[in-house]
Formats: sequence, structure tokens, C-alpha cells
Amino acid sequence: MSDKVVKIGIIGLGTVGKGVIKILNNIEDIIKLKTGGKIEVKKIVTRNISKPWQSFFPFKFDSSIISNNIDDILLDDEIDIVVELIGGYNPAKDYIIKALEGKKHVVTANKAALAKYWNEINNASRVNNCLIYFEASVLAGIPVIQGLNEGLSSNKIEKIYGILNGTTNYILTKMLLEKYSFQDALSLAQEKGFAEADPTFDIDGIDAAHKLLILASLAYQKSIDLKDVYIEGIKDIDLFDIKFAKENLGLVLKLLAVAKKKEDSLELRVSPVFISENHLLASVNNEYNAAFIIGDAAGDVMFYGKGAGELPAASGVVSDILYVAKNINNGIANKTNFVSLNETKINILNINEIETRYYIRLEVLDSVGALSSITSVMGKYNISIASFYQHNYNSNSKESIPVIITTHISKEKDVKNAIKEIKDLKFVLNKIIVIRIEENL
Amino acid sequence: MSDKVVKIGIIGLGTVGKGVIKILNNIEDIIKLKTGGKIEVKKIVTRNISKPWQSFFPFKFDSSIISNNIDDILLDDEIDIVVELIGGYNPAKDYIIKALEGKKHVVTANKAALAKYWNEINNASRVNNCLIYFEASVLAGIPVIQGLNEGLSSNKIEKIYGILNGTTNYILTKMLLEKYSFQDALSLAQEKGFAEADPTFDIDGIDAAHKLLILASLAYQKSIDLKDVYIEGIKDIDLFDIKFAKENLGLVLKLLAVAKKKEDSLELRVSPVFISENHLLASVNNEYNAAFIIGDAAGDVMFYGKGAGELPAASGVVSDILYVAKNINNGIANKTNFVSLNETKINILNINEIETRYYIRLEVLDSVGALSSITSVMGKYNISIASFYQHNYNSNSKESIPVIITTHISKEKDVKNAIKEIKDLKFVLNKIIVIRIEENL
Repeated sequence: MSDKVVKIGIIGLGTVGKGVIKILNNIEDIIKLKTGGKIEVKKIVTRNISKPWQSFFPFKFDSSIISNNIDDILLDDEIDIVVELIGGYNPAKDYIIKALEGKKHVVTANKAALAKYWNEINNASRVNNCLIYFEASVLAGIPVIQGLNEGLSSNKIEKIYGILNGTTNYILTKMLLEKYSFQDALSLAQEKGFAEADPTFDIDGIDAAHKLLILASLAYQKSIDLKDVYIEGIKDIDLFDIKFAKENLGLVLKLLAVAKKKEDSLELRVSPVFISENHLLASVNNEYNAAFIIGDAAGDVMFYGKGAGELPAASGVVSDILYVAKNINNGIANKTNFVSLNETKINILNINEIETRYYIRLEVLDSVGALSSITSVMGKYNISIASFYQHNYNSNSKESIPVIITTHISKEKDVKNAIKEIKDLKFVLNKIIVIRIEENL
Repeated sequence: MSDKVVKIGIIGLGTVGKGVIKILNNIEDIIKLKTGGKIEVKKIVTRNISKPWQSFFPFKFDSSIISNNIDDILLDDEIDIVVELIGGYNPAKDYIIKALEGKKHVVTANKAALAKYWNEINNASRVNNCLIYFEASVLAGIPVIQGLNEGLSSNKIEKIYGILNGTTNYILTKMLLEKYSFQDALSLAQEKGFAEADPTFDIDGIDAAHKLLILASLAYQKSIDLKDVYIEGIKDIDLFDIKFAKENLGLVLKLLAVAKKKEDSLELRVSPVFISENHLLASVNNEYNAAFIIGDAAGDVMFYGKGAGELPAASGVVSDILYVAKNINNGIANKTNFVSLNETKINILNINEIETRYYIRLEVLDSVGALSSITSVMGKYNISIASFYQHNYNSNSKESIPVIITTHISKEKDVKNAIKEIKDLKFVLNKIIVIRIEENL
């Protein structure tokens, strides 16, 4: 009996694409066992066809499979699975849609296109009876996508807390443990390959927001609009607050992606958040990532590992390829689907409506009246103070003193209004730092 | 269009069985969305049909579905999925096999039957083209089974470290953090419902060995004999060693399940093992469990959460039911399989052949010659000493002193031979404690 062969076309030969080819070349036995046949890379499309590709690969490599014409994959009827690895919103989204419309299954690691066009891509999969798998789009090789969508499917998901971006977690870890400034930590991350030359998507929290949207869409079986996710990055974070909170409050700063279900509403936000140094998420350091998911039945579940990198990301991509290839060989790939979406929309809470705890740092002139004025404004907005520190170290000028306040659970709107009023107090300098604190975390 | 209905029969109405019924009753919308239809509990078989079952359930419950006759499930052609929740080797295994032979799909949480009859049960699934799913058998609701079998399928798994038993982890945590003796910690665990009246399977490491066998069989796609897994429990653990190692060596004791691939051999063992207090596994406390899996592509991946309990275990069971029901409704449940096994056997290393680091505690009479005799015996067996402590506290008698030695990586056989010889030294009291230390963990 001759082996079944599943043919794949790979779009994009960057870091992840190279990793996929390395792994496929290394696991012939596993492919046979898991899929019942072989996997053939029939075509690779890349803009850079003139690169000396042979030298990139530690094995014999037929350069005729490389092309710069996307139609060589999208219009080839022999190709069963399109593996989209160019990233970004477009043209990646068009390629994914065209592949599905061309009755090809799709495996992708592209969180940006998935997050922005979640509904359109999943509908194209459903309408065309072709599978779309995307394990590597969130937490690379850590199987959180399948785990959330299938392994935890019996749960009503209460909360998701994610450290979903390796670059920012690396930077915040260096600031916390080695007292780097933000700028020095970013430079080191770039040097070590943990941050890109233009780190905007990572630093500004957009990458984490893409991933949060995917996790939340799976958890709540809803289509969610990317613009409904509140996003705040880490570029204004000051080492002072990281050090102070660790030493005095036992808190550790993370760029935290948060999803919380409250009755019929969903809270969805990415921002710097202080968590307890004793929580397991506080031990997720450097380029490591984690998703901490709380289900009503399973309780606390954490998925942890490397959230990026050539082989970790390729691990997720190839595992998806193996699973789709197995279904193709069993003749069932067109008879099932991966994601089930509920058609009704879900209400996403405006950031002003959320309630959480807050860390607030002000610089005040050393005046007797300052503190009572500040606490009086906070009282007016029903903000209850949990702790209050007047810090000895003079951070800015000879005349100002840092005052750090933590609050009990308060409404974001109230905190914003209070801060606005406090800014106008004559003893208070202009810059006020406000960072959310996650209760019970 | 009338809804598709998948009918299930549940064997066993203990803790997990009750949890399954509670969850199914609570997630009608999710069932509809994930499976495209409904799930009907057609029959529940339990020995205790005379119990006032209605009072157990917070909802209306037709008592005619309860029976004490297993054939009411196994011989009912309308039942699509048999959910086996009685646990233990037999008759559970017979029920599973008969269900599969009767062309029913099976969902089970039974690690004992799976571990002992892994090959037989998986063959019955394959031969009869019926699915067997068992997410809850290891780490309850944490989706490590599917994650290892599918999400990490592109990886050659290098190592698995598991804290797989909640009872023993609870006991060891109480000893470490609150200085309980083993016996007091066990009593507390029983009081809190974390240990059974007869805790033998947990305390002796057998439960963890069952789970390790399942994980290793999936990771290496091999059928493994339970008797080839080396098993050592925690009932002889002394609080002294836990305290000493934490305070002086920065080590934390866990009942650790270990699988390591070395060329064509596999090391498989469950025993108390010291790990670094800085490793993430050292923070897995109380009844929480975790599997730390190292793949050649994905790198370090950890799955963490509650490894037991009514709803956590039922979470895994119901997620499996939903997945199988979806496949049934899509008409593909008989056209695929879950586990792929490689027919060739794998060589399991004898415990004497393993190499690791060791913690050794001796009681010596305060004699100048003792220490040089001990180190001389160790040198004879090529055991290189990493650290050496002569402890001031006199643990046993006025005349003996505890001596604690840690070794560099040594062969287990050499350590056993050395200990045998050291026992015969006239300055050394009879009881010698030997505990493995995991390098790099």
C-alpha cells in the first residue's frame, strides 16, 4: 500500500517558516504514526526568492519549490493545506480567505489577522467546510488554543489572565530583577532578539490585545471587535514604581491581558497591572508567557511556556498540520469544524465602567494641607484608601515628595474624575501615575 | 429541524459521576453550540440504587434512569457513549472493553484501568472503530492529555516532570510550610477530604505511577508495562530532611513522576525528589498538580491546576463527552482515533541504571574516623561529593550526629552499593536516608 501524501504550501519563509521546515524534516516517524502517511512541502512562497535558501537548511532542499507568486499555492488544486506565516493584517487575511474559498484547509500563526478579521475568517472556514487551525497564534507551542476550545469546553470561563507577550515580559523582568530602566531593558531585549527593531506592537500592548481577543472569542464563543479591547502599553512605566511596589507592597508589575465575565458583560483589557508576588503568574519571567484561566468547573488552570521563537512557534504550527493531515487522511476534514461561534453579540464593558484596585503615585509639595485635600477628593468620589505612603526618597526636586496610595476596589470612572480634580490642587505636581492592581492575583 | 440527541450511560455515581451530572445540567447552551444538539443521560448504573438520589441533585431527576444492572448500559443499542467512572482495575476494564466491542464510544477518568490495560483498551478502541477519551484520568480538568497527544505532537518529548497526585502534594506542602509530621499532615489531608480513608494508592506513589504511564505512553507512542515503572512513596519521609534541605540547600521535596528519553531507552520513575526552590514546580502547592513537559521544539511547557475533586474531574469528563458527541453528530466518530501507538516496544531503564544526584543522611557516632571512612567508600564507587554537612542538632541520641551529603550526578547502582558498605561501618548507625535530587530542576 502506498503512503498517503498530504501536500502543503507555506506562505512566508521568515523565522517561523524556517522552523516549520526544520521540524517537518526531523519527524518522519511521528508524521507517519500521527497522520498515517507523509507530508510534502509542495511550494513555499516568499518575496525573497533570490536568497541562497539552500544554505539556510541543514538538508537537501529542492529550490524549485520556492516561488514569489502566491497563486502557485492558492491556485494549485493539489495543495491540501495552506500554511500562512507572513503575519500582519493584510495581505495575510486575503490569502487565508482565498485559501478557504479554494477549498483548502488553513494553518496559521497570525494573531493580527485572526484578531482583526475573526468573524470573517471563521465564517469562511464554516461556509467552505474547510478547517482553520491556529495554535501558534497565542503562546506559540503551548497548546492553550485547543485546551481552551476543547479541553475546557464544559466550563463557563470566569476569568482569563494572560502574560501573552514575550518582549514586554522580558523588559519588565529586567526592570524588576536587575533594576534596568525601561529604555535600557528595551535595548537589551532588542540585542538578545526578544524585541524587534520597531517594537511598537509589543510595547504598546497591541500584540497582547490580539491574543486576548482570540482567547476570549474561544472562551465565550463570541465574535469580538478589536476596537472594543482596551489597550495600554508599558512605555511610560518608571522603574521607581516597579521597585517601590515590590519592596513595600509585595506587588509585581506585568503587562496583563484580562478577560472577565460579569453577568452578560465582558471586561477586556490589556495594561500594566500589579499582581501579588506570591501568585504563580508573578513567577512567569523573562521571555516566558502564561495564560491563567479560571473555569467554573476546572477551577484555576495555567498554561506556561515560551510564547515566541522559531521552534516554539513552529511546534504549534506543525502540530496543527499533523492534526489536519490526519483528518484529511481519514476523509473527515470537510465534515467537522474547530471553532463554534454563537451569533449573538456580547456587551464589552467600557474601561470607565470596570472596577478594580489602583496604585496611585503623586508628587506633592511638602505642605500640611496637601494630604488632607487629596484624601478629601478621593472620599468625594467614594474611593476607599487601602494604604498610604509618604516616601522619604525625593525623586524629582528638593521640594516635592512622592506619595503612594493604593485603593480598595473602585470604579475606574471615579478614579479618573478624582485624579483630574487632584491634578488641579495647588500642592500637587502635574504628573500622576495610575496603575491597576488585580485583587486576588 | 429537531435537535440531534446523543445518549450516554454513566457507570458509577460517586464524586465524579455526580459532578458530571451537575455540569451537564448547567451547560445546555454550550452543549448545543459545541455538539450541534443535546446530550441525554439515558441510564446511570450504580450499586446503590436504594439511596435517595433525588436529594443529591439540585434539579428534577427521573429516578427510573438509575439501575444496578450494567447490561442496562452495555446492551442498550441506543446508548452512544459509555462514561466509566467507577475507577479501579476491574470490573472497570471489562466494562470499557465490552462497551467498545458493543460499538459504543467510551469516556473514562480511570487512570488505574488505563495504566494496567493500556494496550488492550487502545486496541479495542482501534479494532472496533470507537473512540476512547480520558482527559480526566491525569490532572482532572487540566487538558494535558489532549495537549500532549495533539498540541505537542510535533515534538520529540525529552522529559516529563509531574506532580501528579494531590494527596501527597498536600501532605508534603503541609510538612514544608507548616512543619507538620508526615502522620499529622496525612490526618489533616483526610479531614479536609484530600486523602481517602485508605490512602495507600496515593501515599505509596501508585496513583502517580498510573498517571505517569499514561503520559509517557502518549509522549512516546508506546505501550508500557506498569511493572516497569519504578515506584517509591512518601510514607517514610521525615520532617527533618524537608526542613534541612529547604534551609540549607534551597531544595523542596516533591513526589515527582519522571520520564526521560535517552537514546533508545526510557527512564520512568515515581519517588520523592528534591528540586530547586526556584523552579516553577516548587511553587505547585497543596492539592494543586502540574505536568512540566520539555519538548525539542516547544521547549518547557507546564500545565497547572487542580488534579482532583468533583468538578475539576467532571470538567475533563464532560469536555470529552462534548467532543465525542460533536464527532457523532458530524458522522465521523467511527472514522478517526485519538491515540496512535507504535507497535515496537521501548526499553525501560532499570532503576539501578539511572543517573542523578542524591541527598544522603547518615547518623554517625562522633568519631574522627567516621567521616574519612564514609568518603573513602564513596570514592571507591566513583561518587563525587557536592556538599557535606555535619549537623549540630542531635536528632537521635546523645552520641550520634546527622551527616548530610549531596552528590554530583552518580549511578544509582553505585550509590546503593556504597550505602550498603557504609552501613557496615562501625561508626554509622543503621538507618540511612537516600533521596534523589533532580539536576536543573
